[in-house]
Order: sequence, then structure tokens, then C-alpha cells
Amino acid sequence: VSLVGAGPGDPDLLTVRAHDRLRAATLVLHDGLVPEAVVDVARSAERVSVARRAGPKTLSQDVVIDLMVDAAWRGERVVRLKGGDPFVFGRGGEEMQGLSAAGVPFEVVPGLSSALAAPALAGIPVTHRGAASGFVVLSGHAPEAYAPLLGTITPRSVTVVVLMGIGERRAIARCLLEAGWPGETPAAIVVNASRPRQRVWVGRVNTLGINDDFGARDDPGVIVVGDVVACASAADILRAGMGEEQIWQPTTIQGH
Amino acid sequence: VSLVGAGPGDPDLLTVRAHDRLRAATLVLHDGLVPEAVVDVARSAERVSVARRAGPKTLSQDVVIDLMVDAAWRGERVVRLKGGDPFVFGRGGEEMQGLSAAGVPFEVVPGLSSALAAPALAGIPVTHRGAASGFVVLSGHAPEAYAPLLGTITPRSVTVVVLMGIGERRAIARCLLEAGWPGETPAAIVVNASRPRQRVWVGRVNTLGINDDFGARDDPGVIVVGDVVACASAADILRAGMGEEQIWQPTTIQGH
Repeated sequence: VSLVGAGPGDPDLLTVRAHDRLRAATLVLHDGLVPEAVVDVARSAERVSVARRAGPKTLSQDVVIDLMVDAAWRGERVVRLKGGDPFVFGRGGEEMQGLSAAGVPFEVVPGLSSALAAPALAGIPVTHRGAASGFVVLSGHAPEAYAPLLGTITPRSVTVVVLMGIGERRAIARCLLEAGWPGETPAAIVVNASRPRQRVWVGRVNTLGINDDFGARDDPGVIVVGDVVACASAADILRAGMGEEQIWQPTTIQGH
Repeated sequence: VSLVGAGPGDPDLLTVRAHDRLRAATLVLHDGLVPEAVVDVARSAERVSVARRAGPKTLSQDVVIDLMVDAAWRGERVVRLKGGDPFVFGRGGEEMQGLSAAGVPFEVVPGLSSALAAPALAGIPVTHRGAASGFVVLSGHAPEAYAPLLGTITPRSVTVVVLMGIGERRAIARCLLEAGWPGETPAAIVVNASRPRQRVWVGRVNTLGINDDFGARDDPGVIVVGDVVACASAADILRAGMGEEQIWQPTTIQGH
């Protein structure tokens, strides 16, 4: 079994190894969020979606592990394909432990996490001399997890990246403001990075909650907060691969 | 000009797009740390090393930018190849700004940062339910940058990943202990992830400084601190792609 990271969504952003594993697979068990274009790289494999976005059709973790284990013992070449990197908020660790407990040989093929790829595709460096000497990556799903951490970080000392946080962007902004981050700290939201409906919003912490038009709530989105956002001028964002129509409010940030 | 991430070192861990850009390039300007096997993907390009590990032969950032700009205006297809991801401690942001200021069209091709890929290849998930709901990535080069941050993070609340920190591992351990992290917090060091001399050391914060045999000081190494390290049993590490001879002290960690 290969635990494979699918990257942010464009099949060109698969690793060469991930591409090879998909081509050679006989069974692909993929998350619902992985785009068809990526899943279909595995032309000759049976392709099964095992986790829908949210809702009653999601299979439990145990069922997914059982599917992998059974298929492996049947002699299938199994790829477990997860969005981004399998070990970044992907429960890849639990699946690895399940395979391990069942004695199934496996490998991990890391993928591009959108925590880094989404800002990069918008021309935003997560570290930058004088702006951020490190970064923190959190999930927006659970305020009880991110709130205490954001409360302890010296404002603007590092870049904060929040995955799956679009729905919680107001709570995240409030949390940062309460922790002493200035309202004018630059912030960006990258939606559908590397995918057809890719868009980026650029603003500030105190306007993070204002814009309501982020497309479908289920679209993958990455929030980036910190002075690094101001490193990317509107022109940089355009050059880095975004179309002009994909940028909201780029003029609110002073470029250099 | 394409600012391309080379990933952790194995050419198979390039993205498909990075691979294509290297194949199509006429000039590759690469960091000294990028392995030959990756640089040589650009078979038909002139290949120039622009930044040696450390020492007098390093070209200044301005010279590198000038080289890229001149080559772009000459009509070369330039790839600026940087280890890992170009925007993670790679000064990619500065080079982007330089290209932008000169009006040169560019794109960013994100790469696998060893911040995530090195733990993944050792079977260590940077996030894991019940063990870490997020992670922090820092550079080991500058204690003045990481020390204040580590001092504020609630011990064991997130995974701490330190790049380029092998030489500073004692200082990092001391910093964590002073900030209240228990000495028995699991820790690992992954050296040369995905490369021929790949090795992983598994221990605890209070033994982080003890082992002295980390190969050449210049070998790329990633320190991972947090309960997630205990998610990977020795068996998992082996399965995830490491040979038995590549593991030090695996038995000091309690599996699950």
C-alpha cells in the first residue's frame, strides 16, 4: 500500500513518484476532495472515493483501513490517495498505524501540502527576511485547538497559515485581534489553489471577516496572516500564476 | 524564469511540473545543496551552481538576480532551482521581488519542503489526532528567532520542526526545556531524507544533544519534536522507507 499525497489539485503538482504509483495501481482509494483530474491519472485502476466532503456517506477510518488491508492481501497494488500531504491534517498517521497493526507493508509518498503550495502559487513566501523567520500551520476546524496557540504567539513574529479555515475566518480574525495582533496585519485567502477556480483575496486581519464571496463553502481555502503577504505585490501575484480576475482587493496592500 | 522547488533530494520527489521545466530549460541556476541527480534532469541546459554550502564562493543575492534577469532578456529559458520549496527559508521571496522589479515574467513551482517530507519519509506524521493539532516550522540558524517563539508555545501542544538545526540541536533542546517542555518529549532527527545516506535518530528532548554522529555537518537535517514522533514505531519507520541500519536508538520510543 502506498499512502500518497495528491498535492493541491493540479495533476502537474503530483510528484513524479506519486504519478508512477498511480499509473501502476490496481486500486485507488481517494478522498472526495481530490480532483478527478488527479484520480484519473490512475487510468487502469479501480477508483473508489472513500471520504466525501462531509455528510452521511463518509466511511469511517476503520472501514477505510479494512478496505486497504483486504485489498493488499488480495494482491492489489493499492494507492491511498489523500489531498495535499497525507500527514498534514489527513489522518494519514492513523491509517499508517492501522496498516502497521495488520502487518501490511506500506510506504509514504509525501505530497505538496496546500499550507505551503497555496501561498507560493499566489507569490506569497511563508518565510522572508525581516518579515517572518518561521511559520505555524493550524487547522481551522477546531477553534479550541488554534485559539490557545494563537494567543501565545508574539504578534507578527511568524506567519500563520490556517487550512480549512474559510468558514471560521471571522473567529480566527477575532482570536488574532484578542491576542494583540494589529488589525492592519496583512492577510490573504487563497481558494482552490492550482485548480480551475483559483482565486486570492488580499486584505488585512480586520477585514478578514468582511468579504463573503468565497465561492462554495467546501472549496479548499488557505488563510495566510503576516507581513509576508505584503511581500507579494499585486503584480507578483499576477506573475505567480493568477489571472487578474482572480484577485480581490489587491490595492489594499502596499507593495514595494 | 521559473522559481522551482527541488524537493528533498530524490529526483522522484520533484513535481511533474518541476521535472518538465528542468527538461525544457536552457539555463539552470541551482543551489549547491541540490543533489546532482536532480540538477541533471536538465540534460540539455547549462547548469550553474550559484550558492555553495557556506564559504567564500557564495554569490550574493543581487548577483544571482542579475544573472537571472540578464539570461531572461537574452531569451534563455531559466530555471532557478532551490532545495525543498523556494519560499521556505530559501530567500525565494527576495528573488521574486528582484525579478518583479526588473519586469521579468516569472512563475513559482512549489516543491516538497523537507520540513514535511523528511518526517513523512520517516513515518512521522506532523499532525495526529490527540498528539498535535498543528505544527511550527523554524530555522535552526538563528537562535534569536526561534528562542522567543519556542518560549511561548504551550509545551507539547504542537509539533516543532526545525530545519538546518543539527548544529544547534543542544541549544534547541535547552530552549525547549527552559520553556517547560518535559525532557521525555519524543524527538527525532532525520538526516539526508530521500537521499542515499538517509538516516533517522529517535530519542527524546533530553537526549537530543547527546548523539554526536550525524555525519557531515553540512548534510541536510530536520529535527522533529513532539508526541507525533511516538506515533511512528520502529517498524513504521522501516516500512516508511528506511533501512534498519539507518535507525539509531529506535527502541527508546514506546510505540502504540
